[in-house]
Parts: sequence; C-alpha cells; structure tokens
Amino acid sequence: MDADLKEALKGVASDVGRILSNDGFPSTIYPECLCDAVRSYPMRGGKRVRPALLLWACGALGGDPAMALNAAAAVEVYHSWTLVHDDIIDEDDVRRGLPTTHRELCKYAESAYDLNPVQNEKFGRDMAILAGDIQQAWAVDLLMRTAEKGCPPELVMTLVRRMQNIVNRELISGEALDIELPMRDWTRVTKKDVLRVIEGKTACLLKYCVQTGGAIALRTADMEEPALKALGNYADALGIAFQLRDDYLGVFGELETFGKPLCSDFQESKPTLLFMEAMETLSPAGQKELLGMRALPEYDEEVVSRIRILLAESGAVDRILAEINRYTAQAIESLQVLPANQYRSLLLSLSNYLLERSV
Amino acid sequence: MDADLKEALKGVASDVGRILSNDGFPSTIYPECLCDAVRSYPMRGGKRVRPALLLWACGALGGDPAMALNAAAAVEVYHSWTLVHDDIIDEDDVRRGLPTTHRELCKYAESAYDLNPVQNEKFGRDMAILAGDIQQAWAVDLLMRTAEKGCPPELVMTLVRRMQNIVNRELISGEALDIELPMRDWTRVTKKDVLRVIEGKTACLLKYCVQTGGAIALRTADMEEPALKALGNYADALGIAFQLRDDYLGVFGELETFGKPLCSDFQESKPTLLFMEAMETLSPAGQKELLGMRALPEYDEEVVSRIRILLAESGAVDRILAEINRYTAQAIESLQVLPANQYRSLLLSLSNYLLERSV
Repeated sequence: MDADLKEALKGVASDVGRILSNDGFPSTIYPECLCDAVRSYPMRGGKRVRPALLLWACGALGGDPAMALNAAAAVEVYHSWTLVHDDIIDEDDVRRGLPTTHRELCKYAESAYDLNPVQNEKFGRDMAILAGDIQQAWAVDLLMRTAEKGCPPELVMTLVRRMQNIVNRELISGEALDIELPMRDWTRVTKKDVLRVIEGKTACLLKYCVQTGGAIALRTADMEEPALKALGNYADALGIAFQLRDDYLGVFGELETFGKPLCSDFQESKPTLLFMEAMETLSPAGQKELLGMRALPEYDEEVVSRIRILLAESGAVDRILAEINRYTAQAIESLQVLPANQYRSLLLSLSNYLLERSV
Repeated sequence: MDADLKEALKGVASDVGRILSNDGFPSTIYPECLCDAVRSYPMRGGKRVRPALLLWACGALGGDPAMALNAAAAVEVYHSWTLVHDDIIDEDDVRRGLPTTHRELCKYAESAYDLNPVQNEKFGRDMAILAGDIQQAWAVDLLMRTAEKGCPPELVMTLVRRMQNIVNRELISGEALDIELPMRDWTRVTKKDVLRVIEGKTACLLKYCVQTGGAIALRTADMEEPALKALGNYADALGIAFQLRDDYLGVFGELETFGKPLCSDFQESKPTLLFMEAMETLSPAGQKELLGMRALPEYDEEVVSRIRILLAESGAVDRILAEINRYTAQAIESLQVLPANQYRSLLLSLSNYLLERSV
C-alpha cells in the first residue's frame, strides 16, 4: 500500500473510531453483554474502507468531508450489523482476528451462567441476532444525525430512505440468494443469479457509500447527476472486479497469502462465475468431474490442482481474467469523470490497492 | 367486545391491510421464499391493536387519521419483525394459528431442496433472521412515506429517530433481558429488572404508537405537550396493567380460555412480578418450595394448585391485583385529559377490552 493511502486510511479510521466510541447510542442498551456486543465490531477497526469511500467521494466533489463524518460512521455500523448476522448464518468463529459476536456472547454465557454447552451456544446466537438488530437502528440514527453537521434535512431523509429501501433490500436479498443457490440443482442457477449475489452482497453498499458522499458534497440526491452517476458506475465495477478476483484467488491464490483455505467455494457448493463459466464449456465428462469436486470434506493439493486444470482447460480462467480486467478498467475510467484532486487520487489508490493482489 | 369497537377495529384492519398488500417495498426482494416471508406476518392480520392505537390517538387530538395511515402500517411491520426474531429465539412453532416464519421457511426447504432435517431447520432460521432484518427496514421506509401524506418532513424525521433510537433500543433491550433474567440466580434479579422487561417488550411500542398518532395530529413531537404526555402515561399504564394481568392469568386463568399452558413462566424460569412479590414475603421454606417448582417438565393440576396456594398465602396475589387495578385506573384516567370525542371513546373501549379478561 502506498504511504499516502496508508496515512489517509489511518486518518479515516481515527476519525470514525472517535465518533463511534464517543457516540451515546449504545450506552442505554441493557443487559451489559448486549451493549458490549453492539459496540464490538464497530470498535474493532479494520481498514474502514466504506467510510473512506464515502468521505473521499465527498471530498472529490468539493464537499467538506467533516460534514459527512456521521454518514461515514453510519455505513460502518451498517456493514457491522450485516456481518454479525452473516457470521451467525455462516457459523464463523473469527472476524478480524477476534471471536465473532455470537462466539463472544457464547463465551460470556460460559463464564456468567450455569448452562450446558448447547444452551451457551443458543444464548450466543440469540443475543447476536438482537445485537445486529440494534446496530441496524444505530446506523439509521447516526445517518439522521448528519443533519446536525449541516446537511439539509430533505437530503438526509432521501439518504435514509435509500439506506433502508435500496441497500437493505438488495444486500439482504443478495445474502439470501447466497444461502439459497448452493441448495439448488446447479442447472437451475444462472450467471445472472451469481452476479446478483455479488451486486447485493458487495457492490450495493460500496455504491451507497460513494454516492452518499457525493450527494452530501453536491447537496442533491439526484443520482442522474453526472458525477453521482459516475461514482455509482465506479463502485459497481469496483465491487464486481473485487469479488471476481476474490473468487479467482480462492482457487488459484497462494494458500499463505490468501487468508482462507483454498477452494472453500467448492467446499460450500457456492456457484461462482468462474465455476459457471467452466460448466458452460466443459464436456459432459468434465462437467461431471467438476460437479463431483464440490462439498468434499477436504481439498488437498491433488484435488486443488485437478480443479485448476479443469477451470483452465475449459477456458473459464481466461474469460474471468478478461472480465476482471474489463471491470477494473471501467472502475478506473469512471473516476476520470470526477475533478482531479487529492481525494480522487486517494480513491484511485484505494481501488488499485483493493484490486492489486496479484492474479 | 362491544359492537362499535369491533366495527372500528375491522375498519383499521382493512385500511392497514390494504396499504400493506399494495405496498411495493417487498416486491423486489429475492429469492421468492424470502419475499413471501417478509410479507407473511404483516399480511396475517390479527387485531391490529397497534395501528388502531396510533390512528385513534391521532383522531382523538383532532388529526385526520388518513394522514397517519402509513405510520400505522409502519408500526404493524415494526411489531412483525420483532415477532419474527422473537419466535426464532423462543423456538415457537405457531403464530396466530399458522406456522411461525422460521417454520414456514423450514417447510419450504423440505419441499424445495434435497436437504436433511437439520439443514432444513437451519435454512428456516437463517432466512427468518434475514426476513426480520428486511422488515425493520420496511417499517422505517413506510414511516418515512408519512411525509407523502402531508406530514411535515421535520416531524417525520423526529418520528423516525424516535423509532430507531427509543423504540428499537428499549424493545430489544427488554427482549434481551427477558432471555437473560432466567439464567441469573434469582437473588440477582430485582423487581426493577422485571418491570424493565415489561416496559421494553410491551409498553414501549404501545407508547410510541399513541404518541406518534398524537404528534401527527398536533404537528409537534414535543412529548412534554400535555396531550402527548397524557397519551404516553396512558400507554405506559396500559402496557404494564396488560402484562401483569397476563402474568396473573398465566397461573390463575382457566386453561380453556387462556390460550397457552398454565404456569409457562414457571416452566421457563421467567421471573414475573407475581413471583418476585411472593419470594419477598414467603418463609425460607416457602421460597425453597416455590423455587423448586420452576423448570419442571410438566405442570399438572396438583403442581398448579400448590403454586397458586403459595402465591396467595404470601400475599403476592393481593398485591399484584392491587397493582393491576392501580395501573388500569391510571390508564383510564390519563385518557380523560384528551378531548371527549368518538376516538377517545374507542381508545377507552379498546383499553377495557384488553384489560377486561376476568381476573
């Protein structure tokens, strides 16, 4: 990561962290374990990519990022609640190097009450559902308070409505489709379905971030406005390029650098575009072989290497790499519509960083 | 139920039902099973007590209930999402005579996919979490659209903020405390804790309903305004009286008319005020006996009758009945502050109906 970007992200993390840790919203939540759970992910830090996108889009269009700080904190909390519920659904144990919310609460139950292990787990899950529920409200409340930073009330109302009737619906529908697709017979899954998951789970909130930052700068929520439209195209392309690359690296990456086990999408029978592309052109025998490599208990070197060969021979790898390049170029190109300034440069650096992991 | 009240409730149910079934919000949700799940409870009807409270409070203060219709639909959807998540947590199978949302989705999975029973159950729970998540957003979106019915935008913003930073936090905290109290050693539970559960789980949304209706009528969200304050006192007292009576009937009611098994609070080790009052005055031997009657696998006539004797002998029954009367009187009295008109009469009839079940 280049030094300017690193410095700028540190600044965003510190600003957003300050707002969230000083915010009174969680303080009246009881019991205490629920209050702690609501604060947990938002305080945990991470790169704060979404707040950065929001603040820098605001700056790029000539707005004062300080006016958008509550909105930046809001998208971080919004992201948090979807992660809390996602982690319950995926039964994940770790998030950013620490226990997931339902695991934290399960551990709390172990220490605080005299329950059996099944009851401790249920306590953790139940409380984590509620923690996410409150975080969704916290995000809306933070966003509403953008009005206190000088943002016109009508604009704030439109931004709240977009958060609840565009982001919520698309994001949760994407999440639901992500659960549902692996259960279908693969012949009933289309590439369009897979793209909808990416748009919902990844692109939609990124798009909301940059367009909200831009809207605060321009004091309009008219998304047909050329700069806001360009920001939307940028985020759509960035989100898809990022996800396609992530899918690719999930099979072809280096185990050491990728951060999760290889072929986990195969293991969970999740159809990726890479998989769909391969199925389209493989011979019936090849299709059968690839299908048979889903949901295996283990993915050793031999299996991974066989999957790689099938994906490459089908031509799917070349096609996906071309798609990644196309979306990446589209993202970068969309940024050119914005005025050239330091914030546009930061958006460009961030995009390069997110898309740079070697393919 | 008197005929006028019945007729008026039917009118509310029909108005709110029409708004909800024509509302476009759920239409773009995918996959279809999630879309159906989001619509399920709101379409299921029921008495629509919360919308009625909102609309009639608006009418009582001279407002046009038609202007409050979206807000009335919003509180119904808000109530729905809390029920969907509550039913997952309580592992309930039935809601208003039909399967709960997670059960409906589990049944859907049984018919649509080739999963094992554990996976079907998990699918039902996971999708129901997401359905509730979307309903929370739907409620906010509906409420925002009160502005389209002529309600001033600043007032709508205040109402949205109250929904998310008062109702959400208190309601979910109440729900969490309701889960948590049975796990504590009973000596670490206070009457104040028990009251907080009632205020959060029951009174808080009722209060929001009447104060929102009143605020739309008066075009102010200043809750110190005497009529809005009176409405708040009314709902607080109504909610507590209703819940204390429900707790009482849970032990002393007739099995046939009460609708759920007797002594279920004892079975789930949920501390009610009735229980807390009894523990305060029982002899150590009596305390021990009553404590020993929690979490039994079955509550036959003999056990129920012994619990009744302990509660009565401790004086707890008399004290709780006096409290119920006190809160009931307070609710009725608070209504007297409002102008005398047909809507105030309806609020009075509704309160009598809710609190009339013979003690």
